Amino acid sequence: MRDVSIIGIGQTPVGEHWERSLRHLAFDALSAAMRDAGVERADALCVGNMLSGEISGQAHLGALIADFAGLRGIEAVKVEAACASAAAAFRQAYIGVASGLQNIVIALGVEKMTDDVGSRLTAGLASAADADYEVIHGVSFVALNALIMRRYMHEYKVTHEDFAGFAVNAHANGAGNPNAMFQRPISKEAFLRSSMVADPIGLLDASPMADGAAAVILCPTEQAREFTDDAVRIKASALATDSLSIHDRCDPLWLQAAEDSAKQAYRQARVGPEDLDFFELHDAFTVMSALSLEASGFAERGKGTWLARDGQIGLDGKIPITTRGGLKARGHPVGATGLYQIVEAVQQLRGEAGDNQIANARLGMTQNIGGSGATIVTHIFERVDS
Amino acid sequence: MRDVSIIGIGQTPVGEHWERSLRHLAFDALSAAMRDAGVERADALCVGNMLSGEISGQAHLGALIADFAGLRGIEAVKVEAACASAAAAFRQAYIGVASGLQNIVIALGVEKMTDDVGSRLTAGLASAADADYEVIHGVSFVALNALIMRRYMHEYKVTHEDFAGFAVNAHANGAGNPNAMFQRPISKEAFLRSSMVADPIGLLDASPMADGAAAVILCPTEQAREFTDDAVRIKASALATDSLSIHDRCDPLWLQAAEDSAKQAYRQARVGPEDLDFFELHDAFTVMSALSLEASGFAERGKGTWLARDGQIGLDGKIPITTRGGLKARGHPVGATGLYQIVEAVQQLRGEAGDNQIANARLGMTQNIGGSGATIVTHIFERVDS
Repeated sequence: MRDVSIIGIGQTPVGEHWERSLRHLAFDALSAAMRDAGVERADALCVGNMLSGEISGQAHLGALIADFAGLRGIEAVKVEAACASAAAAFRQAYIGVASGLQNIVIALGVEKMTDDVGSRLTAGLASAADADYEVIHGVSFVALNALIMRRYMHEYKVTHEDFAGFAVNAHANGAGNPNAMFQRPISKEAFLRSSMVADPIGLLDASPMADGAAAVILCPTEQAREFTDDAVRIKASALATDSLSIHDRCDPLWLQAAEDSAKQAYRQARVGPEDLDFFELHDAFTVMSALSLEASGFAERGKGTWLARDGQIGLDGKIPITTRGGLKARGHPVGATGLYQIVEAVQQLRGEAGDNQIANARLGMTQNIGGSGATIVTHIFERVDS
Repeated sequence: MRDVSIIGIGQTPVGEHWERSLRHLAFDALSAAMRDAGVERADALCVGNMLSGEISGQAHLGALIADFAGLRGIEAVKVEAACASAAAAFRQAYIGVASGLQNIVIALGVEKMTDDVGSRLTAGLASAADADYEVIHGVSFVALNALIMRRYMHEYKVTHEDFAGFAVNAHANGAGNPNAMFQRPISKEAFLRSSMVADPIGLLDASPMADGAAAVILCPTEQAREFTDDAVRIKASALATDSLSIHDRCDPLWLQAAEDSAKQAYRQARVGPEDLDFFELHDAFTVMSALSLEASGFAERGKGTWLARDGQIGLDGKIPITTRGGLKARGHPVGATGLYQIVEAVQQLRGEAGDNQIANARLGMTQNIGGSGATIVTHIFERVDS
């Protein structure tokens, strides 16, 4: 197994890109990453995407995007793990380089949700859950998360207001990210006033659907210096799964796959949660932030919201999260999100996070969640000093 | 890079499985493969599937199938490359083991085409082609192949009758395969009489859509003996791409990705086409058999049909193809087909191909084609003598 680093990053702004098709968004991110790395060819492309078949009538994105990006002929596949598709694709790219089989590999996440000509988006998102045992009852994906949040509030005696800190923090950080979908701070009052989506999930608990693409270039660490002085090492990579259906889990309030993948990642990197300078978690809904913090070892069970309440998740807090706006404010183009998280982690570690920069960030973690926790991919990244 | 072998295989019969859901089919093949290998756990699962999102409203198959098969928690992802999804998933499994990261990995292909409650199958299959530049004109996937076949007949001065040998051979071999969808031989006359699907493609030029699942278990070759005396080595693995849209290719009658991946495979295995005992090719349509034979070095350009005409593709011919019925007679559950090919190759190399057995088969090749040739995955397998 070879040590692997990231030598280039690229992203499109997140938003409603009515003027750009899926392949154009992919190209924009991919070519930006290649320019950033200073590479003109690649051995392989791993594409993360969830919905292009359902929404855009387009499967086969590996070959399509490789060709459109001027890389016709190279190895290219799509990897899908619902909302965790991009981090899963990144992990396949990592394994390809680590194996010694490939040298320069592109990991790309792309989603074009506004292409939804057949009004299939709600059904498409629900396909992350169990079609035969959950969705058949008419439950949507946000409704499943509402059930989890209601249970969380009941079990741990917390209120809707206790989740406000996650949304306020995300929007505060989104204001500093030129690629974020929402770049305005929100107040706690606005959070409390926001209209209900699926009780108890309000509009400002939920991340927005969006279009976007993000990409990184990977190569063996020992070759990284040929391309850049700002390489970022992949110190740990882990993917774990759980049952799709929430009712099948031992504990509906515990993200077992987050615990499993985070523990594997800590072991690989030989660090603990206390060593991390920031944590890009998967705040598709505010309750997911709490569950992710708990299962990954940052808070005790039932006390994830305390970190938000006590101001520990801000840029100068104990464990900064969603430092560039997270899913909530940067936006959540589902199959691309995992790579936005990784691009943003690299920005922090390179010292390129602008207004959101964490002082002396050396070690950061990303966690991408598929469905309501059935696939969870955790990575740890480290700055390599020049 | 570690040397990798296959230590177990499993498959369901191919056909219309109205009584089995997607997850049941997957379980049947996966558990059969695990029993065959004598393993009870695995480090990872790679699922090949094309259409479950569109047809069954179910994405996220990695975690779903791992859980349903009693392997909750293990690493699991889905890989998609249109009709080449299963061989692409197999290749990811191969890379995982070769890298040293994983020891026991399951590669599974599954497709449930009869779940098509929304009549989206024709649109779903067309998503293998270019949505913006081909499908938007109303062309279906079979119509795209009809255009290729018409051009082939015009350019190389061959007739529809010249393709008969491919279908007759496939059905003759399907008769010996208890898992084939069609187990009756057909005559050349029946081929010529068959009703037209998309001129010049007749019903007996085209492979049938179907349900099915096939799986294999991979492990490092040096550990294979612990599990079986019948391990089959993966001697070469290659995936190449081309443009999705046919009009964008330099030559619409040349499968560049077949040539590229076959040449890579020959180089890795240090063999040539003349050394192979059989070739499981991707006969989705008869013309694809001819193009695959030509681009992979078995026939000169425009002379692929000659091999069929001259009786060279039968079990005792120069290069036996579709030895268990191929896509034409075994059936073509799209995202599973690549693993059916691999399971059948292993059967031949183990001497378990029953009525279809090729005497002393030592070296075989499989080739799985996505779309009309945009992703092509070629593998070479070798019998390991006990």
